[in-house]
Amino acid sequence: MDLLKKTLQAISPRDETWRTAARERLDNLCMPHWALGRLMDLAVDLAGMTRSLTPPVGRKVIATMAGDHGVVAEGVSLFPQEVTPQMVHNFVRGGAGINALARQCGARVVVVDMGVAGDLTDLARAGKIMDKKIAPGTANMAKGPAMTREQGVASIEAGIAIADLLAAETDIFGTGDMGIGNTTPSTAILAALTGAEVNDICGRGTGLDDAQLSHKMEVIRKSLAVNQPDPGDGLDVLAKVGGFEIGGIAGVILGAAALRKPVVIDGFISTAGALIAQALNPGVTAYLIAAHRSMEPGHRMMQARLGLEPLLDLNMRLGEGTGAALAMNVVEAAVHVLTEVATFAEAAVSQADK
Amino acid sequence: MDLLKKTLQAISPRDETWRTAARERLDNLCMPHWALGRLMDLAVDLAGMTRSLTPPVGRKVIATMAGDHGVVAEGVSLFPQEVTPQMVHNFVRGGAGINALARQCGARVVVVDMGVAGDLTDLARAGKIMDKKIAPGTANMAKGPAMTREQGVASIEAGIAIADLLAAETDIFGTGDMGIGNTTPSTAILAALTGAEVNDICGRGTGLDDAQLSHKMEVIRKSLAVNQPDPGDGLDVLAKVGGFEIGGIAGVILGAAALRKPVVIDGFISTAGALIAQALNPGVTAYLIAAHRSMEPGHRMMQARLGLEPLLDLNMRLGEGTGAALAMNVVEAAVHVLTEVATFAEAAVSQADK
Repeated sequence: MDLLKKTLQAISPRDETWRTAARERLDNLCMPHWALGRLMDLAVDLAGMTRSLTPPVGRKVIATMAGDHGVVAEGVSLFPQEVTPQMVHNFVRGGAGINALARQCGARVVVVDMGVAGDLTDLARAGKIMDKKIAPGTANMAKGPAMTREQGVASIEAGIAIADLLAAETDIFGTGDMGIGNTTPSTAILAALTGAEVNDICGRGTGLDDAQLSHKMEVIRKSLAVNQPDPGDGLDVLAKVGGFEIGGIAGVILGAAALRKPVVIDGFISTAGALIAQALNPGVTAYLIAAHRSMEPGHRMMQARLGLEPLLDLNMRLGEGTGAALAMNVVEAAVHVLTEVATFAEAAVSQADK
Repeated sequence: MDLLKKTLQAISPRDETWRTAARERLDNLCMPHWALGRLMDLAVDLAGMTRSLTPPVGRKVIATMAGDHGVVAEGVSLFPQEVTPQMVHNFVRGGAGINALARQCGARVVVVDMGVAGDLTDLARAGKIMDKKIAPGTANMAKGPAMTREQGVASIEAGIAIADLLAAETDIFGTGDMGIGNTTPSTAILAALTGAEVNDICGRGTGLDDAQLSHKMEVIRKSLAVNQPDPGDGLDVLAKVGGFEIGGIAGVILGAAALRKPVVIDGFISTAGALIAQALNPGVTAYLIAAHRSMEPGHRMMQARLGLEPLLDLNMRLGEGTGAALAMNVVEAAVHVLTEVATFAEAAVSQADK
């Protein structure tokens, strides 16, 4: 609990002096005013996060957090639970979507076992993954809390520890997830924090049909009714209807923000983790960049609650950190605009008539 | 005229066999079906364009075509015409938006003088730009045709020649533009080809106020009334209400398509060039990738006419090829998905229940 408390206290606002300095430079670039739009908005934010007019973003790390979910016993996913450890092996071999997209943007993928229901100690011992396993999967939240409050704290602190450990070699973090069934707890987190109707926010995950979707909604409603998570207490929401990888993601986010490093939030599950982080310290959102808009219907509401507008909208719904990796190109582009484009004066280009 | 004819005849459809092969591989990647959405759609298209399951996109070239416009005498732009050659110098020094974003994505910028009203022979002689100057700016289209039909053909053939010249060292082309006042001819081209009302499609360019916008619309309407461009004749539209850099862009697009190489279309002016190319051979659209949605209100209608959905929407309105450069990251990501992600069988991952 000490690490969590210390981290929450260490999160400071973005620096307005650096934001203003960035805005002044961008106002004078040799182009029609603010003609690179959101790249320039993002550059201002990056300057404020990093306290720099040359925000470092070259060393990129995607933390892909894996965990299993007791609620899959209720039949909320098309895929069997064994896919979670299988996919961890696939990450390690470099054959997953996140590996391909991380290679494209030049990011390192750090895979973390937050609570996979399978033995991954060989991979951990070989240094291929990080072992932060809280337990081999959460309990079934349709019948009681997914985890204890202590496990919730431990999952967040594991994420913070990872951000701290990687800090010296990381300029920008991205979040990712792997966990069969994890759109179910993510939807439950959104409903618990906002009071939104499950019907309005629940999606098909990996591809449920109408009957399966209806059943998934029923399971989520039941989980909320059984557990009565307190919307004013992020830890209570995480523990009762969350997941270990979601807690880990919240921890990476909090840790990155405390380090004043930008963190790119992937899709639906990562954004659920961001909601937990926000519930613990609303100031964390100053360090978040929303990568993309997922196909999950609740994602828009999550991003609105965080006050974030996604950079991309490409019908993606894979998770793993794939959207974060793709968006890191856009983040890097924003820095290039801030640091490499000449001003009117530098370029000796005539300005617009007033 | 021979080069144009030959090029128009050389454009073939995308290859359906390769598209099908790509789709079959992507159908079986170890992820929920089609979970990387538009990256996968794009990968299928790239396979069909390049006849390959490993579409080459590593060697990227942005052709930034520059030209001036007689119609600026009517007061349609905030910036003075001298900015066009000044910006060409800025491109050569590497200080413009396109230089910054091309460096980010690893593209080479090739700057072409298609018809700048200024002496750039020193830059051409030093090998810093390519000299394809048709004339030092078009004539004022509000008083008569912007150029002769022969100049229109020459501008397109210059673009084709550039694509041909660069072919051996280019996997993927991007288009870009520089030309003070060139949203005016681009809007006129859209109106001429579609019959759209100028009021519905005309935008503020580099930042016109309401009165200036109203004047710009009047100038465009007058240009259309004076010239009566034939909507069934792309060359007539280009000659009467187009521009040299727009013809050059149309040429790069036709040349790339004839070479079966993908070409990423930047913003409003580049898309006007694509409309001219489409008018000359509708099959050209099979090789086009729409980079982004510009802030110009007519851009949506242009892209709909081309049957293209843009990859990005980031409030950009600079031109130069900046959107194309940014989108090249997404194109590269699509190729990584096709070539680097394992199938369920390769990864030994269990599939979804049927």
